[in-house]
Amino acid sequence: MDFTVTVLGSSAALPTAMRQCSAQVVNIEGFKMLIDCGEGAQNQIRRCRIKMQSISHIFISHLHGDHLFGLPGLLSSMHLCTRVEPVNIYAPKGIRQLLDNLLVDTGTSLGYDINYFEMEGNDPMVLFENNKCKVTAFPLIHSVPTFGFLVEEQPQLLNLKRGVKDEYNLAFDDMMRIKSGADYALPDGTVVPNAMLTKPPKPIKKYAYCCDTLYSDTLLPYIKDVDLLCFDCTFDKSLTAIAEEKLHGTTLSAATAAISANAKRLMLTHFSARYSEVDSLVMEAQTIFPNTIAACDGMRYEV
Amino acid sequence: MDFTVTVLGSSAALPTAMRQCSAQVVNIEGFKMLIDCGEGAQNQIRRCRIKMQSISHIFISHLHGDHLFGLPGLLSSMHLCTRVEPVNIYAPKGIRQLLDNLLVDTGTSLGYDINYFEMEGNDPMVLFENNKCKVTAFPLIHSVPTFGFLVEEQPQLLNLKRGVKDEYNLAFDDMMRIKSGADYALPDGTVVPNAMLTKPPKPIKKYAYCCDTLYSDTLLPYIKDVDLLCFDCTFDKSLTAIAEEKLHGTTLSAATAAISANAKRLMLTHFSARYSEVDSLVMEAQTIFPNTIAACDGMRYEV
Repeated sequence: MDFTVTVLGSSAALPTAMRQCSAQVVNIEGFKMLIDCGEGAQNQIRRCRIKMQSISHIFISHLHGDHLFGLPGLLSSMHLCTRVEPVNIYAPKGIRQLLDNLLVDTGTSLGYDINYFEMEGNDPMVLFENNKCKVTAFPLIHSVPTFGFLVEEQPQLLNLKRGVKDEYNLAFDDMMRIKSGADYALPDGTVVPNAMLTKPPKPIKKYAYCCDTLYSDTLLPYIKDVDLLCFDCTFDKSLTAIAEEKLHGTTLSAATAAISANAKRLMLTHFSARYSEVDSLVMEAQTIFPNTIAACDGMRYEV
Repeated sequence: MDFTVTVLGSSAALPTAMRQCSAQVVNIEGFKMLIDCGEGAQNQIRRCRIKMQSISHIFISHLHGDHLFGLPGLLSSMHLCTRVEPVNIYAPKGIRQLLDNLLVDTGTSLGYDINYFEMEGNDPMVLFENNKCKVTAFPLIHSVPTFGFLVEEQPQLLNLKRGVKDEYNLAFDDMMRIKSGADYALPDGTVVPNAMLTKPPKPIKKYAYCCDTLYSDTLLPYIKDVDLLCFDCTFDKSLTAIAEEKLHGTTLSAATAAISANAKRLMLTHFSARYSEVDSLVMEAQTIFPNTIAACDGMRYEV
């Protein structure tokens, strides 16, 4: 299954010449979601040749400006490109009032509806589900209500074992029932157990986005066994005290999250503008979790 | 005198891969002002190697998003770069509430003050004046209260004619008085008229920014004899009907403004995203006003 993350922005609150504020497009088999929407996200979407109007689901981790100042411009541009399909925005409580105020104050009228889903509380929430994926929000540890997102592929149908179709002369409907887990009854009444007929599908892939946050073991249930973990790495480990004060991640906490969660790969993001290059941060994380990379604006990553 | 305009954005409401939304930095002898602040202005400021913190005066033409969605991010970044000097924002009435709401809703606290000057009404207003320049706002013709800006150099001192200093053995204070327009009294009481002692300074230069607007002769008093006129050119002349409906400029109205105002040079801006190149628009305007150029993002223009 095609499951990728395109990084539109990977800076902390202060963007730089190399990195814009947080934003990503997650693409599962052509179904595209935007996660966070820092200033300039719409320009990055253009540069990455992603069709803006193909995005109908926007997930905002928290209501700090560096994660949403690109939203009014994007919504306005969608309107100017004559959008009619609704946009679904999932964000902490307050997003609706924030955007309503801003759209009214700037005389921005939209020719399509926005469906708001305002997140609150400390329980995980399944925000969205279709035949390709499921998106679950879970609470992070930051100075304002902040949520991580787990994007999972939907379980696939079982695969028929080689030769089964011909051996039993299966019709299409039979095959679909078997691939869904059913046993198969022969004309003489004999039941062939499903396990004789099928083999498991490829395991589903999972992507987790945790930004901005401290690390805590309380995150583990949500990020366990993910294929790609994108984690807040605002600071290097020498600045752990500042990170803890500001409730942000470090090389150390990101790598600890990845190893504790048994993640397959770790992507660091939300780099402080003090780092003109982040190779040293990647190497620092790699001492704990070798399969670590740095998010880079404009790059697409396989989950 | 060094008097330049750096174009940060020159698109209409919908930005493109080549053009961002409206924003410009005007620089008079190192004194920098920002005019309009579309999304991404702070990134363009970085790309153009302009010191963000050197900007203390921001002029917003009107409260449409494409002219101000870059403002919250810029103000936030100024704070993150530990600004303490106040920022002065000149914008139509409503800007204060708009920004106050947004800063509160996004938990953005600033370590410096914002001084608001909210413009309203139909009279021209001198918004700002220092020893280098004067900025006057004047009403434009758009769907919401919108203002043009005239930026003028301050009149310079008169120049002493060659040889005058030695002929009359002038002290510094005498020279300054004469350069300011005074006559000079000789010890015997004879008065030498100022005109005998001085020659005029270089004429002051003027820049006018008119975006978004229709053209009308009512603008002429404010844009008369400017050295550079930056004018709304959202559409080519074949779309005049749409321009009039949407209260925007065309090649034709921009060129008419320039020739009627006796401007020295015309810069077209605010191009609709429908134009992948604007050479044909420049040529269209040049049939009426030959000294026409197109604003281009990232370019600096002498006034």
